[in-house]
Amino acid sequence: MPPVKQPRAQRTPPEVRRTQLVRAAVPAFARTGYAGMQLQDVAEEVGVTRNLIHHYFPGGKRDLYVEAVRAACADVANLLDVDPGVPLAEKMPANIARYIDQILEPSPLYTLYASAVHSADDEVRAPALATRETIALGIARNHLGRRRPAKALRAALIGYISFTETTCEQWRAEGLSDRAALERLLGDVLVATVAAAGAPRPGSTARPAPS
Amino acid sequence: MPPVKQPRAQRTPPEVRRTQLVRAAVPAFARTGYAGMQLQDVAEEVGVTRNLIHHYFPGGKRDLYVEAVRAACADVANLLDVDPGVPLAEKMPANIARYIDQILEPSPLYTLYASAVHSADDEVRAPALATRETIALGIARNHLGRRRPAKALRAALIGYISFTETTCEQWRAEGLSDRAALERLLGDVLVATVAAAGAPRPGSTARPAPS
Repeated sequence: MPPVKQPRAQRTPPEVRRTQLVRAAVPAFARTGYAGMQLQDVAEEVGVTRNLIHHYFPGGKRDLYVEAVRAACADVANLLDVDPGVPLAEKMPANIARYIDQILEPSPLYTLYASAVHSADDEVRAPALATRETIALGIARNHLGRRRPAKALRAALIGYISFTETTCEQWRAEGLSDRAALERLLGDVLVATVAAAGAPRPGSTARPAPS
Repeated sequence: MPPVKQPRAQRTPPEVRRTQLVRAAVPAFARTGYAGMQLQDVAEEVGVTRNLIHHYFPGGKRDLYVEAVRAACADVANLLDVDPGVPLAEKMPANIARYIDQILEPSPLYTLYASAVHSADDEVRAPALATRETIALGIARNHLGRRRPAKALRAALIGYISFTETTCEQWRAEGLSDRAALERLLGDVLVATVAAAGAPRPGSTARPAPS
């Protein structure tokens, strides 16, 4: 690595400082949204001047936002346990519970990810779509052991991620409290999604609903 | 009804003219998005002056947009067959096929609905959320015959609508062609969603995935 240029009065290495600023920006943007967020608050949180933020992020608030979204989206993707050493019957409910926690709270990570996923700004939307992609590939690997799932399964799992987000958001909005029912629902629908999209059954048709 | 005031040189009744303008605005906004849409194009399509549009929609483009979104969202909601005289085994696949058509095309109706559902503007988002609500209630009625489903089922069905939209959008983006597989997937996941959220089974847990 090339030697990093350090401002004279600053002891914290630039890379560390930059990360501190991005980390502090995640809850700040989540709390107030983009428009309401004050760079001064992040500066105070980290104990630096507002000018230093502009030194690290020449585009100011917008640059810091893009970096905060990237960091949050990476963290959301990393919440999925894809350890092949953990059995699916253990890993799947734990993964579902972990995402439910994020969405019901909602955590600052989820708040930033969720506002990015429908952003009109391509640079903001990209990391959120990448997160959905990573989670979909992780679920496919967990369930079927494939590194690259078929495109149809990938599409279905990205759809399932949408299902999870919208259902949990509705659950929160309605103040529903039966957490076990929510976990069961997300588990059952995941199993159905993988079964329907992961193992094509030529000639079969949709089963009628239970009467 | 009070008598309607007619501009002298105009033969078309105001209500009819207004509807013509809104109807012409739906594909116009869908084609170019809000920013690119030209009121002049709608005026020419209907054969009136740009000034007449401002007469009907004093807020101009934005007012016309809100009305176009409302019309499109109402039409999207009305696509669901909820006729109690049609058996579910016939109605469900037909409903699914009808929404797939809208999303894969995508139709101007769906384009306007889909851009409204994540709008930051409450007045634009409201009709899209109402459409999801109406469809969720219609599905619940079709499957379980209840006029007001339990909140958990309602949340799950709104989640399912999200699943349908995202999955079909991915299907389109990937250029996937196995339409029967998509219909089967949406049918299976709907049945699983209704089964898991419509009939709570206290004490049961998520089933492990098929190995």
